[in-house]
Amino acid sequence: MRVTRLFVDHSFSSEQSVPLSEAQAHYLMNVLRMGLGDPVQLFNGRDGEWRGLIDKITRRRCSITLEKQVSDQRTEPDLWLIFAPIKRARIDFVATKATELGVSALIPVFTEFTDVSRVNTQRLQSNAMEAAEQCGRLSVPEVDEPVNLSEVMKDWPEDRLLLYCDETGGGISINEYLAGQKATGRTEPMAILIGPEGGFSRSELDLLKEKTNFTAIDLGPRILRADTAAVAALSCWQSVLGDWASE
Amino acid sequence: MRVTRLFVDHSFSSEQSVPLSEAQAHYLMNVLRMGLGDPVQLFNGRDGEWRGLIDKITRRRCSITLEKQVSDQRTEPDLWLIFAPIKRARIDFVATKATELGVSALIPVFTEFTDVSRVNTQRLQSNAMEAAEQCGRLSVPEVDEPVNLSEVMKDWPEDRLLLYCDETGGGISINEYLAGQKATGRTEPMAILIGPEGGFSRSELDLLKEKTNFTAIDLGPRILRADTAAVAALSCWQSVLGDWASE
Repeated sequence: MRVTRLFVDHSFSSEQSVPLSEAQAHYLMNVLRMGLGDPVQLFNGRDGEWRGLIDKITRRRCSITLEKQVSDQRTEPDLWLIFAPIKRARIDFVATKATELGVSALIPVFTEFTDVSRVNTQRLQSNAMEAAEQCGRLSVPEVDEPVNLSEVMKDWPEDRLLLYCDETGGGISINEYLAGQKATGRTEPMAILIGPEGGFSRSELDLLKEKTNFTAIDLGPRILRADTAAVAALSCWQSVLGDWASE
Repeated sequence: MRVTRLFVDHSFSSEQSVPLSEAQAHYLMNVLRMGLGDPVQLFNGRDGEWRGLIDKITRRRCSITLEKQVSDQRTEPDLWLIFAPIKRARIDFVATKATELGVSALIPVFTEFTDVSRVNTQRLQSNAMEAAEQCGRLSVPEVDEPVNLSEVMKDWPEDRLLLYCDETGGGISINEYLAGQKATGRTEPMAILIGPEGGFSRSELDLLKEKTNFTAIDLGPRILRADTAAVAALSCWQSVLGDWASE
């Protein structure tokens, strides 16, 4: 049995009692049927992971007395996923998989051909939290409120590189880009941008092409759904430049 | 609007009338509301892609008169995905995504810690067919009947390399393996093996380790769900050794 891990936005120190949310109390008591004295591990994105024991549990309230730190906070890759929102099941999927694949931020972006006009960022944040708890991460990626692509481009941070997936065939092979970047030895923060199912518009592609630090990449001859493209690009990135790499 | 593409297991030649299945007739007539003379593109996994026009359409029957070939059959990567079956929505997801990512065969395999005891291969085959139609492939991956891991290993074809994802940390970084293999210039057929959520058992890992041509690979420090691991490994493979690569 894997240990139960929960994220809490609370500072940690030895012997401290950390309160859980009502949803977490319900989950431990009614779903996992845990009781007083049962072990739980907590992380807050800053202080590593701590082992603790349930010191109080009722239908709505639960708290954990911290025993000891079991892992230090690790540095995690600084990689944003910027994605045009898609329909419900598949946007949840993107939030979950991107969290497992180690992104630091999830940024929904409206483009010309984006069909979806509302994004439930709170639901995406819960998906990300649950995935982080299950996959052993020591942080939960931040889910931003949706913005327009033009705003993202206007306020782009100078030091961050961006890869966008160009379905029209204008990009370079993703592995060629990643291997080349690895060879330079530089470690700039990065972002991956995935358009909607209909792709970017001609004028969006023209604007993207003009930006310094933006690179069009190619994900092969088959047409990938937007969610597949996101997972594929993140996996390739982690394998070459991220924390899956051997050096 | 993208053109409607359908897979049919039928030979093609110019001016020939090709019958569709009842499900396909229903889809064209009632879902897409197409009628006589509307264009459809067909592929059969052997003769490339052909453009044709609907020459008959009723509730249950439809046929297409072929006009001309619009693309030649391409050679596609020879990559099998062997995977421990998982619960419904996520196994459908694996079949769909693996098809988009260009696998040639999908082979469900029972392992010691596999929870699922039945696999609806017919449903997986329809998922694969639908994904092939949508992603522009000229073939549909074959879905095999499930087998036990021991049988897969006993009858393993000598010339095919296999990568298995070892969650216990015994493997080499996937990119290190793929880049090394690419450097050799050899192009053996390959397979990727993904275990169940609980991982492989100790004795399975021992047996896998003994096999010539089998290599344990590592997908980073986070615990990936089985479906995420499948999509991640296939994406990395395509980007370095498959048809996403630039050379």
